[in-house]
Amino acid sequence: MHAQPTIQSVIEQVNNWGRWGTDDELGTLNYITLDKRVRAAQLVRRGATFSLSLPFDRFGLQPPMNRRLNPQHIMLTSGSDLLARTQPGQKGGYGYADDMIIMALHAATHWNALSHMFYDYHMYNNRHCSLVSSEGAAKNSIAVASAPIVSRAILLDFPRALNIPWLPEDHCITVEEIENTLTRQGVGIEPGDILLFRTGHMARFLSFGEWNEYTYTNAPGPCLEVLPWLHTHQVAAVASDTWAFEAVPSKTPLWLPIHAVGIVYMGLMLGENFLLDEWAEDCALDGVYEAFICASPIPFSRAVGAPVNPIVAK
Amino acid sequence: MHAQPTIQSVIEQVNNWGRWGTDDELGTLNYITLDKRVRAAQLVRRGATFSLSLPFDRFGLQPPMNRRLNPQHIMLTSGSDLLARTQPGQKGGYGYADDMIIMALHAATHWNALSHMFYDYHMYNNRHCSLVSSEGAAKNSIAVASAPIVSRAILLDFPRALNIPWLPEDHCITVEEIENTLTRQGVGIEPGDILLFRTGHMARFLSFGEWNEYTYTNAPGPCLEVLPWLHTHQVAAVASDTWAFEAVPSKTPLWLPIHAVGIVYMGLMLGENFLLDEWAEDCALDGVYEAFICASPIPFSRAVGAPVNPIVAK
Amino acid sequence: MHAQPTIQSVIEQVNNWGRWGTDDELGTLNYITLDKRVRAAQLVRRGATFSLSLPFDRFGLQPPMNRRLNPQHIMLTSGSDLLARTQPGQKGGYGYADDMIIMALHAATHWNALSHMFYDYHMYNNRHCSLVSSEGAAKNSIAVASAPIVSRAILLDFPRALNIPWLPEDHCITVEEIENTLTRQGVGIEPGDILLFRTGHMARFLSFGEWNEYTYTNAPGPCLEVLPWLHTHQVAAVASDTWAFEAVPSKTPLWLPIHAVGIVYMGLMLGENFLLDEWAEDCALDGVYEAFICASPIPFSRAVGAPVNPIVAK
Amino acid sequence: MHAQPTIQSVIEQVNNWGRWGTDDELGTLNYITLDKRVRAAQLVRRGATFSLSLPFDRFGLQPPMNRRLNPQHIMLTSGSDLLARTQPGQKGGYGYADDMIIMALHAATHWNALSHMFYDYHMYNNRHCSLVSSEGAAKNSIAVASAPIVSRAILLDFPRALNIPWLPEDHCITVEEIENTLTRQGVGIEPGDILLFRTGHMARFLSFGEWNEYTYTNAPGPCLEVLPWLHTHQVAAVASDTWAFEAVPSKTPLWLPIHAVGIVYMGLMLGENFLLDEWAEDCALDGVYEAFICASPIPFSRAVGAPVNPIVAK
Repeated sequence: MHAQPTIQSVIEQVNNWGRWGTDDELGTLNYITLDKRVRAAQLVRRGATFSLSLPFDRFGLQPPMNRRLNPQHIMLTSGSDLLARTQPGQKGGYGYADDMIIMALHAATHWNALSHMFYDYHMYNNRHCSLVSSEGAAKNSIAVASAPIVSRAILLDFPRALNIPWLPEDHCITVEEIENTLTRQGVGIEPGDILLFRTGHMARFLSFGEWNEYTYTNAPGPCLEVLPWLHTHQVAAVASDTWAFEAVPSKTPLWLPIHAVGIVYMGLMLGENFLLDEWAEDCALDGVYEAFICASPIPFSRAVGAPVNPIVAK
Repeated sequence: MHAQPTIQSVIEQVNNWGRWGTDDELGTLNYITLDKRVRAAQLVRRGATFSLSLPFDRFGLQPPMNRRLNPQHIMLTSGSDLLARTQPGQKGGYGYADDMIIMALHAATHWNALSHMFYDYHMYNNRHCSLVSSEGAAKNSIAVASAPIVSRAILLDFPRALNIPWLPEDHCITVEEIENTLTRQGVGIEPGDILLFRTGHMARFLSFGEWNEYTYTNAPGPCLEVLPWLHTHQVAAVASDTWAFEAVPSKTPLWLPIHAVGIVYMGLMLGENFLLDEWAEDCALDGVYEAFICASPIPFSRAVGAPVNPIVAK
Repeated sequence: MHAQPTIQSVIEQVNNWGRWGTDDELGTLNYITLDKRVRAAQLVRRGATFSLSLPFDRFGLQPPMNRRLNPQHIMLTSGSDLLARTQPGQKGGYGYADDMIIMALHAATHWNALSHMFYDYHMYNNRHCSLVSSEGAAKNSIAVASAPIVSRAILLDFPRALNIPWLPEDHCITVEEIENTLTRQGVGIEPGDILLFRTGHMARFLSFGEWNEYTYTNAPGPCLEVLPWLHTHQVAAVASDTWAFEAVPSKTPLWLPIHAVGIVYMGLMLGENFLLDEWAEDCALDGVYEAFICASPIPFSRAVGAPVNPIVAK
Repeated sequence: MHAQPTIQSVIEQVNNWGRWGTDDELGTLNYITLDKRVRAAQLVRRGATFSLSLPFDRFGLQPPMNRRLNPQHIMLTSGSDLLARTQPGQKGGYGYADDMIIMALHAATHWNALSHMFYDYHMYNNRHCSLVSSEGAAKNSIAVASAPIVSRAILLDFPRALNIPWLPEDHCITVEEIENTLTRQGVGIEPGDILLFRTGHMARFLSFGEWNEYTYTNAPGPCLEVLPWLHTHQVAAVASDTWAFEAVPSKTPLWLPIHAVGIVYMGLMLGENFLLDEWAEDCALDGVYEAFICASPIPFSRAVGAPVNPIVAK
């Protein structure tokens, strides 16, 4: 592995504070131009769609006793009440079912809002962390990203490029590996793209049949050195099939330096726990690693992250 | 108003049980062909996107004390903890914020799953209501619709066609009114379309500044007679800017006959509380009432409905 | 009304920091000696018991949209599932029902923990407020009071003493009124007593049939001047039939001065929304205003308050 | 082990339906007379109190992924907000902390309501199970028991009587063992008593430092044959330091026959996960195995069980 650059040097390279005005809350999503979306839509050539979302349920990837609660799905009324004739207003078998959910917003497939991370007591665009209190995020909440996340997606299928089932759990993806993978896949990066890093790490745990030790442990992902490359290429958003997107351990003094520098200074939209396997299979078959993507989070007011069902279409 | 057809006669006209096989759980979403999506994507001509979702928060449209709880957003940690130096692992102002949600799945902008309604103790495709118990929906859950809801959207802007701010609260929209509105808007229906009925009812309450009496009360919407028309035109999904989609009161013996017959017999994907105003404004300006739509729900396992952030692009 | 003493002067009079050692987390509960409990138990002369708890449900006293969520009771399975034969493991009508709750801990009848309030950035016994973070209260949590709240209770029935149904909503109860009421009731205060202030305010709202404007508005209760009197008499805990215990408005620069000074400096156990009417009726009948009380909160770890079902026996 | 009696024969022996009238919802709590409470109070000779409640937190005994969610404690605001100066209304360090809970009502220390169990589609006092629907228990809810659970408690410390740390995990306690233990402890049973069965099973898991495999697995407890004995002695309530109170496996055709017959036919108040160790230690020291008990559940409306912090005083 290359020696990683210092946190400070990367901050200086990728800092977008003020780039889109002092009021900006969108960060790198600004790279998605209207024209970008028009061209992305032209990638829908076959009409196939793929959901990149995990199932949302209590069998999810968060470990027991964690404060990030897996989705707890609870029925408020069901066909049982109808059959038992205990449902108000029923007649002739006319009835309904209703339900609710309790969950940590970062529990499963999600986008981190630009209010999710702080460095030097600030979040994206020079905003003080006191703007995110127990009443939620007064600025940089996920709700501001409710409409714009529609663009071109590029799959980076690292293990398939290497003909292995998954990257080693402490593998740190370099710029060189990204560029090699793009070359092998025959696709180039353009401003406004959304890059989806497939490490195979999720497939590995799905093959185990349980999530034990998936979260908050070592995971493959990009090295810190990748951030300036993403910055230069004006990437609009990134996500991966791991819990942290970035490599853990990071080989830097910070646990999650791409979170700190990317989210805080670049204003990088960063997604986690994207399920890329079915789409990746399709890409391997037709050799097309680009697609149209629509990945809008549920706009929870003042939230610092939100579940999303990202859809790619090709 | 026309006299409404009988429930039974409409059931006979629109019944899709078995049409797509006995295993089918998608219902009218089957009308969305691959080719349909390719053509829909070509409607992205300008690159503009619109979210049709309400903000998700505790100031939502569900009335106090209702079992359908408005989204309750709660922080698990925030910038306050960082500033107060109570956040584990922090150093040099490096920290994070995290949050959670508690909500009824049908509380705000959502799709009803085909397991949401029963008639004669059955749900879509001849499945017994006992398949939906306190453990959730064993069949017809919203999770099956996680990928396919990508197609062409047509806005039906009834009040704007009539040059009024909103339809009267008990107005029952007829087939004739739909066809007149389509004609005035210069757009035709094709199989696989998703129809979005704008009644102005939500705009009316937003103008009041509070939701009091919005839900479970009278609301404009389609008459029962509209269902056979939707069936004939092979509409893939419908939604509106009201709490029930259909007209209340219904002028039939059932409170919500389109729910009963449409969801149960047609297998109709039905969305509620879609915020159509911003997009409608844009349609009025450019005269284009069709758009590409991506409206995939969060795939909660075994759920009978799910929040969605529907995105239209044009 | 008497002019109220200054906050600072009351702090100086009632400060108990260090009184029971620097490790103490019990505050005024220390006044309850073993012997006190033995004598209190002797007040159980008739064997009658009264619950001082409101019903816990979603029709509770917290206003709509408040972050203090009323108790939301949700079934996890029920007789409906059994009847519908959808309950796993059932045979011959053998089955069960299960349920859950979501609620703010201060929503209904509750004790405030000594970690509930801060003044000058500190809580009881000179502990810094940073000990209460998003991870809960590291000190002074309600869990420390899980066993000791067993003592003698004295009812102070102010409106009955005045032969009125309830005190005016902005009435500030003085020391003189307390002493007059005790005299009229024929009972004296002793160290370790738990004083229950009945203002009739809750009865007033129960007579209305709705809680609208009950919380966070004007309410009768003790003046700040009462605190030194409670201190001198070594009262172990207080509670009332209002949302704040103390008079609102307070006629001091602080909104809730008894919270600030009593909880923070005295270490006063303070209960709210106690339903005193049935017991008060009984006291009026037999003229006995003292009773044995057992009022132990549910010991939620690290909580800053907890629901309680206080029981008095006489 | 004795051969166990048949379910049907035990039902016939212990059936209390109608015994206290057709409207009765209290069941065996009716055995607690006013006079019983007066005598129980006289057992408070030293003034010592013991909480029999486990800590309520997310590290509780329910296994991961179970629908019975362990208590999830979440702060709504805290000292962090105060310190960070993000708390509304703060001045001069005057502020507060607030919190909430999400939990299954049967997750930790709790009483089962008489609506918790069904047999032959009925619950206590010949009420049909359809009275317990998704809207909760219309009859036999825990709320009816909000005041009366005040009586004499008897500890049955089985392992200490045998000089072992805990009973074997599949041990089925017989009537003979109960009587031997009472004799050894020098205490007799009287009508209205509340019997607390200490098996040492909880102490065993506490010694392990984790709850893994504690719930829904084998556990020591009374045999079915014990029910008629409890009935004859007019025991008012029972509880133990296990998840199910009764022996698992039961050596009968039903998984939990004491639940079925005791709760449904006797109307037996049955508590689970009571932490008896500290009190038991004290009993061993002073040789007094009786105490005053106050064990009133939080009165959740329509609930089929509720958390309780049982207090014994001696």
